[in-house]
Amino acid sequence: LVSNHGVKCRALDVANSPPGLAGTKFQLDDVIEAQQFDRETLSAIFAVAREMEMIEKNSTGSQLLKGYLMATLFYEPSTRTRLSFESAMKRLGGEVLTTENAREFSSAAKGETLEDSIRTVEGYSDIIVMRHFESGAAKRAAATANIPIINAGDGPGQHPTQALLDVYTIDREIGKLDGIKVGLVGDLAYGRTVRSLAYLLAKYHDVKIYFVSPDVVKMKDDIKDYLTSNGVEWEESADLMDVASKCDVVYQTRIQRERFGERTDLYEEARGKYIVDKNVLNVMQKHAVVMHPLPRLDEITVEVDQDPRAAYFRQAKNGLYIRMALLKLLLLGW
Amino acid sequence: LVSNHGVKCRALDVANSPPGLAGTKFQLDDVIEAQQFDRETLSAIFAVAREMEMIEKNSTGSQLLKGYLMATLFYEPSTRTRLSFESAMKRLGGEVLTTENAREFSSAAKGETLEDSIRTVEGYSDIIVMRHFESGAAKRAAATANIPIINAGDGPGQHPTQALLDVYTIDREIGKLDGIKVGLVGDLAYGRTVRSLAYLLAKYHDVKIYFVSPDVVKMKDDIKDYLTSNGVEWEESADLMDVASKCDVVYQTRIQRERFGERTDLYEEARGKYIVDKNVLNVMQKHAVVMHPLPRLDEITVEVDQDPRAAYFRQAKNGLYIRMALLKLLLLGW
Amino acid sequence: LVSNHGVKCRALDVANSPPGLAGTKFQLDDVIEAQQFDRETLSAIFAVAREMEMIEKNSTGSQLLKGYLMATLFYEPSTRTRLSFESAMKRLGGEVLTTENAREFSSAAKGETLEDSIRTVEGYSDIIVMRHFESGAAKRAAATANIPIINAGDGPGQHPTQALLDVYTIDREIGKLDGIKVGLVGDLAYGRTVRSLAYLLAKYHDVKIYFVSPDVVKMKDDIKDYLTSNGVEWEESADLMDVASKCDVVYQTRIQRERFGERTDLYEEARGKYIVDKNVLNVMQKHAVVMHPLPRLDEITVEVDQDPRAAYFRQAKNGLYIRMALLKLLLLGW
Repeated sequence: LVSNHGVKCRALDVANSPPGLAGTKFQLDDVIEAQQFDRETLSAIFAVAREMEMIEKNSTGSQLLKGYLMATLFYEPSTRTRLSFESAMKRLGGEVLTTENAREFSSAAKGETLEDSIRTVEGYSDIIVMRHFESGAAKRAAATANIPIINAGDGPGQHPTQALLDVYTIDREIGKLDGIKVGLVGDLAYGRTVRSLAYLLAKYHDVKIYFVSPDVVKMKDDIKDYLTSNGVEWEESADLMDVASKCDVVYQTRIQRERFGERTDLYEEARGKYIVDKNVLNVMQKHAVVMHPLPRLDEITVEVDQDPRAAYFRQAKNGLYIRMALLKLLLLGW
Repeated sequence: LVSNHGVKCRALDVANSPPGLAGTKFQLDDVIEAQQFDRETLSAIFAVAREMEMIEKNSTGSQLLKGYLMATLFYEPSTRTRLSFESAMKRLGGEVLTTENAREFSSAAKGETLEDSIRTVEGYSDIIVMRHFESGAAKRAAATANIPIINAGDGPGQHPTQALLDVYTIDREIGKLDGIKVGLVGDLAYGRTVRSLAYLLAKYHDVKIYFVSPDVVKMKDDIKDYLTSNGVEWEESADLMDVASKCDVVYQTRIQRERFGERTDLYEEARGKYIVDKNVLNVMQKHAVVMHPLPRLDEITVEVDQDPRAAYFRQAKNGLYIRMALLKLLLLGW
Repeated sequence: LVSNHGVKCRALDVANSPPGLAGTKFQLDDVIEAQQFDRETLSAIFAVAREMEMIEKNSTGSQLLKGYLMATLFYEPSTRTRLSFESAMKRLGGEVLTTENAREFSSAAKGETLEDSIRTVEGYSDIIVMRHFESGAAKRAAATANIPIINAGDGPGQHPTQALLDVYTIDREIGKLDGIKVGLVGDLAYGRTVRSLAYLLAKYHDVKIYFVSPDVVKMKDDIKDYLTSNGVEWEESADLMDVASKCDVVYQTRIQRERFGERTDLYEEARGKYIVDKNVLNVMQKHAVVMHPLPRLDEITVEVDQDPRAAYFRQAKNGLYIRMALLKLLLLGW
């Protein structure tokens, strides 16, 4: 029994592993945080995601998860994430119970605890995909439930399936994860995705990270220290063109207005500072790609969309494959 | 043709009844109110619920209701009840059309009658599960529809599937319904569930009911008179410990803040008066159980959850089996 | 390649057409506006709708669209239309991803363009049914998407499936579309359905249209001019009884309060002016029918419902068959 940041993993009998998945496999019990995955587990999940890509493209409907029921328990709406998970489940022949109204379970009037709601919903389903407004809610749910929990975002905390699909996309687009150069651009202070991505990239060798952001939303010291202590080279730059010309991946993010409160002047200044446009594309290498977690505003101009290096809609699609893979692994195992 | 409180029931040819279901069977046309069920029908429904328990536990997906479509027409949200019905339908291979927005059908701007909405929705589905804010709405719907209607709660009126699952849970946990002692605790004045439960328990022999509630939410005379005239012994008590030591079932309920309006002082006094905690458990008999319709606040302390006599999450799960049974009976018959 | 009002249609190899569907067939790529359909295409769609009627009535569940996934992307709620589409998809064995919250994709805070939302959702589904508050939104979506788009209403613009089901209902009820007399009653100025219906009726021979409406909501000149230039006879009348006695179809519509702003006096005057009641039925011919797009208020009295000539609930049901036909045609072809 291996405990990894409080998330349960169990070593499996490797003799029963499917061919091509060499090495020790871990049973996935829950998907709670990006940190729970080591390099080998990531690699194994990505192999399953590739299989899912084949299934989605070459058949009208797999029956792999036929008879299984997933509950999407969303305490705040996130149509994009919810549809991605529900599509993943249905593409594998599974069924879905949906609620975007889960706050009603624990409303002020009723005051039910998250734990009680989970105990009720686990009686109706085989796996719970949960979105919550409070950091740590997914871990609490997993501690209570006897069925798998997938964290689909818990407040300012974690959104591990986004982190996985980001790394998977780099692997699919660039063909490797060791030795890559990645520029993280935009809101690095509050952006949950770039923080998780930086964390996961530290698991690979010879990675170089460039931080390009307006001063008010610079990457915080905890991630910088983490990278340094894990031997990842990083530097801050104010020159997007220079960074773009060197990188394999330019990962742009949206500057979130809601972080600036009354200071709309600071927001307007920050959001216009680093735009990915044709000029940026022109200096990028031929094999490099532009990524973005979506939704985008105007931090990538629409003229970029036509360029084959614009990878952000493929990235969104990869979210489907990653989620198919996780559902398969959590419900059926490797 | 037997008319029972306005709900249609048709005597069936008993020669075709499945073995083990002796006696006259009635065809279920709709589920509108707890009063429509007699002792024999309850017993037959419970037998089907037991079969559903086997199906749910031992297979990945029954196909019993494959090709059938259930519409959940909710004029007010009730995530818990909705998910339970939708899970029941999907566990049997059926499909679901969902709306928690049904008020839009009859919004002030549009003003469509309930009858017109029902005539529209019955064209799209095979059975309608309806939640409404007005007492009597389900009966009106059933009078209009040519397909079965299940009442999933109509305002202060009825919530018959909750009543059925409560009685089923007592039967499953205690092993009998005749000769039992039941303590009803908490909000007995406004609690729809305890009123329906008292009504149904009157169908069994030698039942004794104890009412334990703050003065402001005491059981009303209509139920007391009904019990007396049906030969059910009852008494009011202010001593929860004494009642708990005698009962087979301690049925706790939530004191609802919304019943007290501005008088939050009365609410606070009432809600703290009768709490089921370790001390109560300590005087309860070994075979006895604690039930609760959920959601709970703090009227049962969480320390009770670990005790095998805490039956409230099993009770919620039984709601699934009862609803599977009703869907099967309404769509396929006995 | 035939371009028809900007909507793509491709001529198909007629050698592969199913028997009974003679003549050139056009591949349906999207359903955007009533104008995209010519008389032959309408006739071919109606033939498929008839097949769908057989499927729905005679089987428990077709598997024609098994493995296909439809996304209902609703930027404003319309429970009636959504349930009709979702029922159509599920009656054919297909699966559904639902959102009535699609505005969240393009909320003020996030500001994603419709085009970006469509690119994301098309990665999760095989066909998109879209309801939007802006005229022209469906055409923009179709220009972006690589999968079929069905317009389920875009603001004051189009609602083509309603127009199709109206014409289909006349054909089913009266048995022909050439040579018919149709009375359009009620709100003719703002009513999207009567405007589209008038447009489609102009494709048939010897059609006569009567306009019966309060002065404030008279049919606008654009439609009158269109009818005239297409050789359709029309006249305005203030005498509903006279019109009803002559027509094959009395198409009643709701006067919409929201069109009158503060002038509730004008609204009250207009809404009471032309009511279809027993008196109107009494002068109608035996084979004639009353239609209404629903929801209705009191512009048709409930006493009319029992008359076999009250066709409005059958009309709603025909919406199911038309939508089944369109889903089949868009996903599988003729």
